[in-house]
Amino acid sequence: MSAATASRPPRRPAVRTRVLERGEGGSTITLSTLPEGLRVVTEAVPGARSASVGVWVGVGSVDETPRLAGASHYLEHVLFKGTRSRSGPEIAELVDAVGGELNAFTSHEYTCYYARVLAEQAAMAVGVVCDVVLDAVVAAPDVDTERQVILEEIAMRDDDPEDTLADAFAAGVFAGHPVAQPVIGSVDTISAMTRGQVAGYYRRRYSPERMVVSVAGGVDHAEVMHWVRTAFAGRLGEPRPPRPPRTGSGRLGRVRPLAVVERDTEQAHLCVGVRSLPRDDPDRAALEVLSTALGGGMSSRLFRTIREERGLAYSCYAGTSAYADVGSFSVYAGCQPENLGEVAGLVRRELDDLAGGGITDAEVRRAKGQLAGSLVLGLEDPESRMSRIGRTILTRPDHRSVDRSLAEIAAVTPGQVTAVAARLLTGHRSAVVVGPYAGTDDLPGAVAELVR
Amino acid sequence: MSAATASRPPRRPAVRTRVLERGEGGSTITLSTLPEGLRVVTEAVPGARSASVGVWVGVGSVDETPRLAGASHYLEHVLFKGTRSRSGPEIAELVDAVGGELNAFTSHEYTCYYARVLAEQAAMAVGVVCDVVLDAVVAAPDVDTERQVILEEIAMRDDDPEDTLADAFAAGVFAGHPVAQPVIGSVDTISAMTRGQVAGYYRRRYSPERMVVSVAGGVDHAEVMHWVRTAFAGRLGEPRPPRPPRTGSGRLGRVRPLAVVERDTEQAHLCVGVRSLPRDDPDRAALEVLSTALGGGMSSRLFRTIREERGLAYSCYAGTSAYADVGSFSVYAGCQPENLGEVAGLVRRELDDLAGGGITDAEVRRAKGQLAGSLVLGLEDPESRMSRIGRTILTRPDHRSVDRSLAEIAAVTPGQVTAVAARLLTGHRSAVVVGPYAGTDDLPGAVAELVR
Repeated sequence: MSAATASRPPRRPAVRTRVLERGEGGSTITLSTLPEGLRVVTEAVPGARSASVGVWVGVGSVDETPRLAGASHYLEHVLFKGTRSRSGPEIAELVDAVGGELNAFTSHEYTCYYARVLAEQAAMAVGVVCDVVLDAVVAAPDVDTERQVILEEIAMRDDDPEDTLADAFAAGVFAGHPVAQPVIGSVDTISAMTRGQVAGYYRRRYSPERMVVSVAGGVDHAEVMHWVRTAFAGRLGEPRPPRPPRTGSGRLGRVRPLAVVERDTEQAHLCVGVRSLPRDDPDRAALEVLSTALGGGMSSRLFRTIREERGLAYSCYAGTSAYADVGSFSVYAGCQPENLGEVAGLVRRELDDLAGGGITDAEVRRAKGQLAGSLVLGLEDPESRMSRIGRTILTRPDHRSVDRSLAEIAAVTPGQVTAVAARLLTGHRSAVVVGPYAGTDDLPGAVAELVR
Repeated sequence: MSAATASRPPRRPAVRTRVLERGEGGSTITLSTLPEGLRVVTEAVPGARSASVGVWVGVGSVDETPRLAGASHYLEHVLFKGTRSRSGPEIAELVDAVGGELNAFTSHEYTCYYARVLAEQAAMAVGVVCDVVLDAVVAAPDVDTERQVILEEIAMRDDDPEDTLADAFAAGVFAGHPVAQPVIGSVDTISAMTRGQVAGYYRRRYSPERMVVSVAGGVDHAEVMHWVRTAFAGRLGEPRPPRPPRTGSGRLGRVRPLAVVERDTEQAHLCVGVRSLPRDDPDRAALEVLSTALGGGMSSRLFRTIREERGLAYSCYAGTSAYADVGSFSVYAGCQPENLGEVAGLVRRELDDLAGGGITDAEVRRAKGQLAGSLVLGLEDPESRMSRIGRTILTRPDHRSVDRSLAEIAAVTPGQVTAVAARLLTGHRSAVVVGPYAGTDDLPGAVAELVR
């Protein structure tokens, strides 16, 4: 070692910063990656009066062992109960006192803690959200109080037919895969989970290389970096690369064809669908066009056939879900039980027609226009922008600009949509009904025919 | 008459136009009143990429006779089914094809038809929304189809405990007043209503002097005026003044103290409240401060006492409603039946404490900050701006600027809040429970004590 090099302090790894996109309305999207693996992405929006702040943590229900089912969501509750420097009431008061919103949500693959405030409160919001995520106490009495709150939340889910249906559909279509399990856990696992289990899950999982801080609105990147560095001071740990996006477990069992959840409701609620495409599949844009044409608006096939022409349902639509390695494409309709057979028959007719190449050029054109327009319309508020950039950085190998998404939609051809429909809609279908039925034998025959 | 005046054409009454407000973020709010009574209010927001268009019609369920209960909402459904120049599918396709949203809602005192689109589609949106409101065909087969859709909507309401609770609470607290009736009508009135009744109600009620066209976003007032004039060409009728805001019926019976709606649900849902202040009461700001301190956020009394400290509910909050001549102030909580007595006791303790002057200066200060911050935060998207200006012009004697609303909040003193609490919370209380109870005798005693 030469004297010259020996006299230099050890080189501190540099923060890497780059502009990802010049976005809608003159905004600038910038990403910094800290040596310790933390990523900070901002969208500075000229003229925005508010700011949305999110901390995205790559921890969700797919990370849980069976005994810990619901632990990710449990944590989301407990972290707001107090940190080493702020009590739960102090956290709530800080944000309430300026009319802001502080909340969080948990999904299968990640958890997001966020706040929405006036731009002049953005520094405070970054400080509070990071404090909650990094420095929660997870005290035993708080774990017990939140246990009761979560059991109430499970009871609410059970009283909501559409929420019950969504969980039951995921269980059937994703049978054998971790995303088949409800994010909220079960009465059994929540009742049994100890403070030690919740705190251990927190300690093991909540590390900077699994986190993305995302801020959009009336802020600039340099000031956000300063606030984040202050909030993470002493908590960044050793240098290491950011955790790459999940690849998924790949485990999948056989699709469950049909199930009933008995409820004493006025309406019967039907969901039927197939496994479809994971998040990064190149055919995702074609699938979104297909889903939009089938049930994405007032001019979609389902809305016209079931509601507008026959008045059989108030609510009917199609949708997709997408995870690292799996996805679904499904149809929902809610109707009075005497109409369930007719509704199921109409849904089947549309699915079979699309599988057989029945989509028209006009439908594809309209669906593409709808997707492109709603993508741009959806970017007007800082909250949507914060979600788009944060979720993308956490879950995808690279940033996706709005222009790229628009180009992908524009490039979809009727032939691609037909091919995707033929491939997916001829697969095994899974259906669930929530309503006044004791079992699958009670259902009209047309429901069983849907999944035959 | 002199030759000079005789040669002039009859003087056409002038459009009166004035700037009402220089709003948030450099926006300009302008109102034009046409000689025929139609009002057009716009908020031009520099840099906004989207536009929201609303037609507010001063027709709602309080205008209905008992046999026509639900007619206002029925109309809202039927008008989208087709106009003399466009079929229902054509209307849906126009807006869907650009990714826009077209919808409507009906309340007790007004109905609003609206669209949200990219700014370059604003002319189309004004044309379509005005066409739907002014020129619908109201064909008999469409009335029959929508009858089925509305019956599905009633079934959905019956399956939703919180919606059921809201309608039942209004029935009790406003007993004897037209706002006690549900906007949606009943199975009996909807089943019996004829095409002639619906069309007659439309013809008699939907006149320009009862309408306010409201547009906010990337538009300017002069271009909106041009689009509106084109859409209303030949439909403005005779000169007449705009319909003044409602004054209300003033009819009120005795408050119903307690009711149960039996449902086989996991949770019991409690709503308890009092009659409070109409829309224009000078004490409204003090009431909002009271409501916010009691149950307006994570730091509110109810959230802390019931959820954060005891885990007795997932959802609990306070809120107000306000109409021309009446209003309500109420508390909601959903909990498992075994906790209903304890929750009712805690709610009672808080209501009694506030009635007795228990609010603190710190609570008032925080609630004022929360109201002011959320008012400004709520104005970021064109949709909220469109709603604020349209609803205000229709329902109030004058425009209310954001600055005026903020000044009213700032001026509230702890003494005023205490006085409002003492005046309102010592009045007759009305409570409803939705849940697994056959009648009021099945309820825990603490619920009856709430209304004693």
